[in-house]
Amino acid sequence: MQIAIALYERFTVLDAIGPYQMLYSLPGAETVFVAEKAGPVRDDGNSLALVAEKSFDEVRRPDIVVVPGGPDQSDQMENEALLGWLRAVDPTTTWTTSVCTGSLALAAAGLLKGRRATSHWLALTELDRLGARSTGERVVFDGKYVTAAGVSAGIDMGLTLGGRIAGDEYAQSAQLMAEYDPQPPYDAGSPEKAPAHIVARFREHSPLGR
Amino acid sequence: MQIAIALYERFTVLDAIGPYQMLYSLPGAETVFVAEKAGPVRDDGNSLALVAEKSFDEVRRPDIVVVPGGPDQSDQMENEALLGWLRAVDPTTTWTTSVCTGSLALAAAGLLKGRRATSHWLALTELDRLGARSTGERVVFDGKYVTAAGVSAGIDMGLTLGGRIAGDEYAQSAQLMAEYDPQPPYDAGSPEKAPAHIVARFREHSPLGR
Repeated sequence: MQIAIALYERFTVLDAIGPYQMLYSLPGAETVFVAEKAGPVRDDGNSLALVAEKSFDEVRRPDIVVVPGGPDQSDQMENEALLGWLRAVDPTTTWTTSVCTGSLALAAAGLLKGRRATSHWLALTELDRLGARSTGERVVFDGKYVTAAGVSAGIDMGLTLGGRIAGDEYAQSAQLMAEYDPQPPYDAGSPEKAPAHIVARFREHSPLGR
Repeated sequence: MQIAIALYERFTVLDAIGPYQMLYSLPGAETVFVAEKAGPVRDDGNSLALVAEKSFDEVRRPDIVVVPGGPDQSDQMENEALLGWLRAVDPTTTWTTSVCTGSLALAAAGLLKGRRATSHWLALTELDRLGARSTGERVVFDGKYVTAAGVSAGIDMGLTLGGRIAGDEYAQSAQLMAEYDPQPPYDAGSPEKAPAHIVARFREHSPLGR
């Protein structure tokens, strides 16, 4: 079972790492980080480079695809190399998944038409515009398409998917080893819960908040 | 403000990325990934390489140090390059922090003697043996030393520390943008909550479970 995690410049690194950490010990699975060209790919903080071990051309039959998001939607939606690869490999995947605005890439590639899906809370309108039917849920399954809400939701997506693939005991073991017993010191993780003026500021200034 | 995240072979990547994602937009902060030698450093899954931009020799006055953990405690505790660097830079840090078994490195470097601290649940005994006073808490502050429990606890640590450094509004904004509103599909994130036979299996087979 090959898990391919797609990278592109200015991706959000926790989007990629959350699912990776929950899925990487799946029995019989190997994970490959993949990008247009093999080599280091920089994140949206520009402080970090994660190495793509293979190019899109070299990974043609992944079983599971994970597309992370990033703060500038054009990086995903107008990334023809990424979209072309997604269209090429999707017909033979078992699961095609995304975290955060990664779902905008799946939608722009034409893979989410009429499907229930989710994205970062600032990107739900754009997701609908691209033909998906957005929900407010944290993890959405529609057939083999699995989308997660913003950034950290990829952890919950990875656990849920790991459970579907390898059973509850696999997922519980992954959760225990990652000591995923969240105790956030604030309760500001969604636009419904965060202080209204912070939400308003993001809606005003984010490229996704239009 | 320089945030230095220390890497070494077979580190657990979410340990490093959780705090990074919560702290990387601190006003005036730059983050540098650092290792014994600059270049790619492979994780405990051996599927991923994160690039250390600088060597330990090049980063001598970080304000914040973050040490991730890894499943094989000897990788931290017997890593003289890492321990030497920690001893050298700690006197001038504002915060010296760890996630998961990263605290074993801090303790082995002599920085946690008599201090309250935490680690991965499988490593608490070892942490005590090294002179710290382990607690069952998820995030522990003792002066400038901040330690987090296993893997995903680094997200909670990063948010807590971000709030201390830059105020509640910074931390709430980081939480909102990461949509950190956890909804784990299972409730197995601690040894108290996970099925007993899974906990027992890890205690029996993990190198940390002795």
